[in-house]
Amino acid sequence: MHRPMLQLALDTFDLPSALAPMQVARDHIDVVEAGTILCYAEGMHAVRALRALYPDKILLADVRIAEAGSIIAKLAFDAGADWVTVVSGATPATMEVVLTEARKRGGDVQLELIDGWTWEQAAAWRKLGIEQVIAHRSRDGEALGDLSWKPGDFDEMRRLADLGFKVTVAGGVEVADLPLFADVPIHVFTVGRAIRSAADPAAAAADFQEAIAATYGAEAL
Amino acid sequence: MHRPMLQLALDTFDLPSALAPMQVARDHIDVVEAGTILCYAEGMHAVRALRALYPDKILLADVRIAEAGSIIAKLAFDAGADWVTVVSGATPATMEVVLTEARKRGGDVQLELIDGWTWEQAAAWRKLGIEQVIAHRSRDGEALGDLSWKPGDFDEMRRLADLGFKVTVAGGVEVADLPLFADVPIHVFTVGRAIRSAADPAAAAADFQEAIAATYGAEAL
Repeated sequence: MHRPMLQLALDTFDLPSALAPMQVARDHIDVVEAGTILCYAEGMHAVRALRALYPDKILLADVRIAEAGSIIAKLAFDAGADWVTVVSGATPATMEVVLTEARKRGGDVQLELIDGWTWEQAAAWRKLGIEQVIAHRSRDGEALGDLSWKPGDFDEMRRLADLGFKVTVAGGVEVADLPLFADVPIHVFTVGRAIRSAADPAAAAADFQEAIAATYGAEAL
Repeated sequence: MHRPMLQLALDTFDLPSALAPMQVARDHIDVVEAGTILCYAEGMHAVRALRALYPDKILLADVRIAEAGSIIAKLAFDAGADWVTVVSGATPATMEVVLTEARKRGGDVQLELIDGWTWEQAAAWRKLGIEQVIAHRSRDGEALGDLSWKPGDFDEMRRLADLGFKVTVAGGVEVADLPLFADVPIHVFTVGRAIRSAADPAAAAADFQEAIAATYGAEAL
């Protein structure tokens, strides 16, 4: 199993609040995410700034495209994003224009699974050319209080991987959760607050990388 | 039937391109929309600028919330928005937190209907407290070339109104289309390029208001 990458989700209300933890944790981060909140707060200026600062890292603009796919994708790729996100509620036509735009730029598309999707849709997305999906624990679900990972979550991720998707996990992954993923093929672990809000974001990010290596082996990415 | 309002969709790649047509057409516009594209391009700075310029107009931030509802809603309302949008693919939990946030601020929520929604869901949204829906002709659908309004479109809008929704129409409405809506109860007509890209945006907006008055009567809003 490939060693998963570590993505830092910069879901902050302004750019400086994103830059501070990213800059200190940068050596331990594989993928930089301009979060939806940051994109809406600061616009594509945030994506441009992150591109300028970290030219060699994978940069994800979490723009969660639901419609007007080609325009929003263009905006994000023009600003320097490598990857953009679409939501599972988008139509196949929207996903197709986003994929087309991504391929033109040598970029890629992550499809964010929002409650209500079906396995029939998942097979259709794969056929359409979508390669990455995000198994996401919603903040609003979290708000209702249940933070634990369930066996069903892992079964779902394995089944998505079996369909040929690279699976990103997002939404409140903690270092202590990593062993739970031992037999789940994960492409990217997305971590936000657990690194951003740590007293020492660099140490927190290093802890995640260590836990990933301990769980999946130290094999090169 | 109430006379519908006219909304100008400012879906531009930067703020100045939005300000130019809005400023000249402002006397004819009831609702100012900071479009998704503008929100992503310039962030909530665009919403703040529009609030500062047009304190007495209804200001919609078309943030198309799919998740992380309360945070994005807060961001938009803090910036001065009166209304925010959620997409039909969002979970009821997400819609509920957005509604709660809107009510706290004396604002409202428009639900954008993206292909794939069901009438069963629509009834549930109404029960949840959603009052406004957007019957939207997708840009990506338009990209496939079919620009005409179909009898089925109007039937759908009437049925939505019967359920108790205030219906906004978006996506390529032209002045010449207005008579088609004569017996459809519409709350807001959203117009973008037909006003923004007109040689004289003020005259174009006035034409829409005249066509609305001619279709629905000159009765006060």
